[in-house]
Amino acid sequence: MGESFGAYRIGHDHEIMPYITSANIACGFHAGDPDVMKRTVHLAMEHGVKMGAHPGFQDLVGFGRRNMALSPEEVYSLVVYQIGALQAFVKIEGTALHHVKPHGALYNMAASNEETASAIAAAVKDVDMSLILYGLAGSKLIEAGQKAGLKTANEVFADRTYTREGMLTPRRLSNALIESTEEAAAQVVRMAKEKKVRATDGTDIDIQADTVCIHGDGPHALSFARLIQTKLKEEAIDVRSIAMEE
Amino acid sequence: MGESFGAYRIGHDHEIMPYITSANIACGFHAGDPDVMKRTVHLAMEHGVKMGAHPGFQDLVGFGRRNMALSPEEVYSLVVYQIGALQAFVKIEGTALHHVKPHGALYNMAASNEETASAIAAAVKDVDMSLILYGLAGSKLIEAGQKAGLKTANEVFADRTYTREGMLTPRRLSNALIESTEEAAAQVVRMAKEKKVRATDGTDIDIQADTVCIHGDGPHALSFARLIQTKLKEEAIDVRSIAMEE
Amino acid sequence: MGESFGAYRIGHDHEIMPYITSANIACGFHAGDPDVMKRTVHLAMEHGVKMGAHPGFQDLVGFGRRNMALSPEEVYSLVVYQIGALQAFVKIEGTALHHVKPHGALYNMAASNEETASAIAAAVKDVDMSLILYGLAGSKLIEAGQKAGLKTANEVFADRTYTREGMLTPRRLSNALIESTEEAAAQVVRMAKEKKVRATDGTDIDIQADTVCIHGDGPHALSFARLIQTKLKEEAIDVRSIAMEE
Amino acid sequence: MGESFGAYRIGHDHEIMPYITSANIACGFHAGDPDVMKRTVHLAMEHGVKMGAHPGFQDLVGFGRRNMALSPEEVYSLVVYQIGALQAFVKIEGTALHHVKPHGALYNMAASNEETASAIAAAVKDVDMSLILYGLAGSKLIEAGQKAGLKTANEVFADRTYTREGMLTPRRLSNALIESTEEAAAQVVRMAKEKKVRATDGTDIDIQADTVCIHGDGPHALSFARLIQTKLKEEAIDVRSIAMEE
Repeated sequence: MGESFGAYRIGHDHEIMPYITSANIACGFHAGDPDVMKRTVHLAMEHGVKMGAHPGFQDLVGFGRRNMALSPEEVYSLVVYQIGALQAFVKIEGTALHHVKPHGALYNMAASNEETASAIAAAVKDVDMSLILYGLAGSKLIEAGQKAGLKTANEVFADRTYTREGMLTPRRLSNALIESTEEAAAQVVRMAKEKKVRATDGTDIDIQADTVCIHGDGPHALSFARLIQTKLKEEAIDVRSIAMEE
Repeated sequence: MGESFGAYRIGHDHEIMPYITSANIACGFHAGDPDVMKRTVHLAMEHGVKMGAHPGFQDLVGFGRRNMALSPEEVYSLVVYQIGALQAFVKIEGTALHHVKPHGALYNMAASNEETASAIAAAVKDVDMSLILYGLAGSKLIEAGQKAGLKTANEVFADRTYTREGMLTPRRLSNALIESTEEAAAQVVRMAKEKKVRATDGTDIDIQADTVCIHGDGPHALSFARLIQTKLKEEAIDVRSIAMEE
Repeated sequence: MGESFGAYRIGHDHEIMPYITSANIACGFHAGDPDVMKRTVHLAMEHGVKMGAHPGFQDLVGFGRRNMALSPEEVYSLVVYQIGALQAFVKIEGTALHHVKPHGALYNMAASNEETASAIAAAVKDVDMSLILYGLAGSKLIEAGQKAGLKTANEVFADRTYTREGMLTPRRLSNALIESTEEAAAQVVRMAKEKKVRATDGTDIDIQADTVCIHGDGPHALSFARLIQTKLKEEAIDVRSIAMEE
Repeated sequence: MGESFGAYRIGHDHEIMPYITSANIACGFHAGDPDVMKRTVHLAMEHGVKMGAHPGFQDLVGFGRRNMALSPEEVYSLVVYQIGALQAFVKIEGTALHHVKPHGALYNMAASNEETASAIAAAVKDVDMSLILYGLAGSKLIEAGQKAGLKTANEVFADRTYTREGMLTPRRLSNALIESTEEAAAQVVRMAKEKKVRATDGTDIDIQADTVCIHGDGPHALSFARLIQTKLKEEAIDVRSIAMEE
């Protein structure tokens, strides 16, 4: 959410906000700008949606999706800065930030690189110990968060396929995306109910699904969001934001 | 302070820090970056120097010194964002931000433009009512801060001359700067003791001097800082940071 | 044209390109990026559209629409840089740049400020004497171009109203825009045939219309483009790009 | 050269220019800005130094030294853009660009990655077939340049050690740099006379030395430059820029 920038509009924030319980808000580095952040925080407040910082690489033209070789120190400062900036807008509205989810290439690098993961966890912990750290289910980032004593949320993806190792199939591969909203919803329901997902090689792997990611900028974002919520409700799975205190 | 950026070094932060009581720290828009901010906050902590946010225009190549026609809404969000970013680093060190002083062209525009001044005051107030707003002595920014119910600090300049109206002589004029450190120190002492300054047309004008600005990037920054402190001490004028609570 | 940036799409370049004879292409400062520039140059080539550099302020978040106080030297270098960058892509396609039209706030400042206008004209002249300089009809920029010995093109606007002085009514005023495509087309036809336009105070003023501006990012850009071309053809006014050699 | 940016000064361009025959000039992405580029081109002209474009990643805060995962298409456009921008300033001075040398992380990635190397070579070729491509001696970039039909220059380093494979020892290793100017000069002389260099494992490897890199921003840049020139002269090795036409 909040990935528009200046005169540039991206995403369907107004349409999707009613169907989600927590939003990841861009913090001005890979996307977003101070005005957009202010408006997005307003919008989330209106819908009672929990807000998370979505810090990314300082690569606006690449939308934070290109890997960058930052030192752990640089990652730490980058994350502190962006959380702080968003936090100011959130506090003005009389509420508190709920979680932190790294964006794009930073998220992916943190899933497999321990140093990057630890730097992010340390930044989140130092800014506010009560923030929940969102990371790829079962990844290094979740491990790093747990080691740091943070509450973590294992994130799963509705519209992405998984490798046997539990990683996301890279986007450059043809079978990376699940195009059918029905299949995507079914994958989410199975992950939630059975804690399993079928990997691209046909084997079933274990997965912990605490939160489901829906991209706000995809063409089917809204129909995805609606269908997943409907299907989960049919299975009597309650959709709600993760409590900050256990 | 903290106006270095990436591989670029500017200013004499380590040398000047021992001679000041409050520092204005760049927040990554006109200068500074997250790593520099982190290090500068550390440095200020070591010296027991009070920290203020120094938000500026998003114009790195112009060092925030070129006027930009922003709407009041844009100014508001810009200031909130930058205070928030710095605040995160400051809080990690277990302390609180002390004040806010707009930088460069934003400072100058806020001195004479009521809308800009009000937007800044509103941003400061909304982020933290206890922050002190620094502005040019007797300017619109001080007025706006007072209207918003903020504690304000009238800032005077050691090395700049004043117009009859109490504004700074624009830098493009040949008599804008006071080159002699002796004269600069004498101007500060008189402002502190007599609440007067001699304007460029020879008349004496009233001035309220709550805080004295020393530029960290000038060639004489260190000798200025030392001499001013010595001269004020000779006159038995105590140099200390402004209390946040009256 | 070419005002998309990274993941951000803006404008209707593919739809509008068939209806125009010359395109102003963003050069990466106020909008556009190297990849977008490359694709936009390709697109213009396909349609046989003449290409102009559209240099703007380095203010991506403000889309180059906010006045910035640059020195004439800064304006000169800014314009040289951006023309050069676009020129490289144009030359790769085996053709030459046709004109230069400053963008947004730079265009407006150049219309009334002689120093800015002269800096732009000098930059264009120094890069390539045969480039045509586009400026607001009858403005300082046109004067500066003529003084510099450049061929100039007086630009008129279909969807903007004019003040008695021949300036565009500022966008913040309610009567700045002509919403009706019919009225906009009629204004263009009259400017072309009679060299007159009715100002907002009701008086008729003289105007020289060498080229008509159509904004690629407006909601009605395509219908505007089509209707204006149709109406001009009905009046037997030939629509073609301006010849570089007289 | 030309790696200053706005208010930030870096490098010793004025001091070093008299001791070199060709300069790599930053193009505004990893360092440099339009004004700095203009001044640097002037300076090179005064000293009769051949000018090369020094395109880098769009990562100012990282000074272009952090690897970024760009697609070959993105690399191509990035390089075309930056060459074009510098070319405009060079042409204004009545001369032509002499060579292209990628900067920092882009240079290193191009040394070992064939796709990146080919994209750069294609960009250089498309902009101007007569430009000389500078690359790490014996690297993929030199190969790619040769395949594209470009004249290439094998670049060697005075103050860096080499691995057995002929790559530079990574900067993070303790033996990456040669601190002694005497040793550095001796390494250059041997590379020039014997076409050999001693690798860090003690073996002698073959190396082709067409051009020697001297970093303009190091603390010893000037003494390095002087000593190397003196030593080469003592050995009757002529130091001159590489001819564009064979």
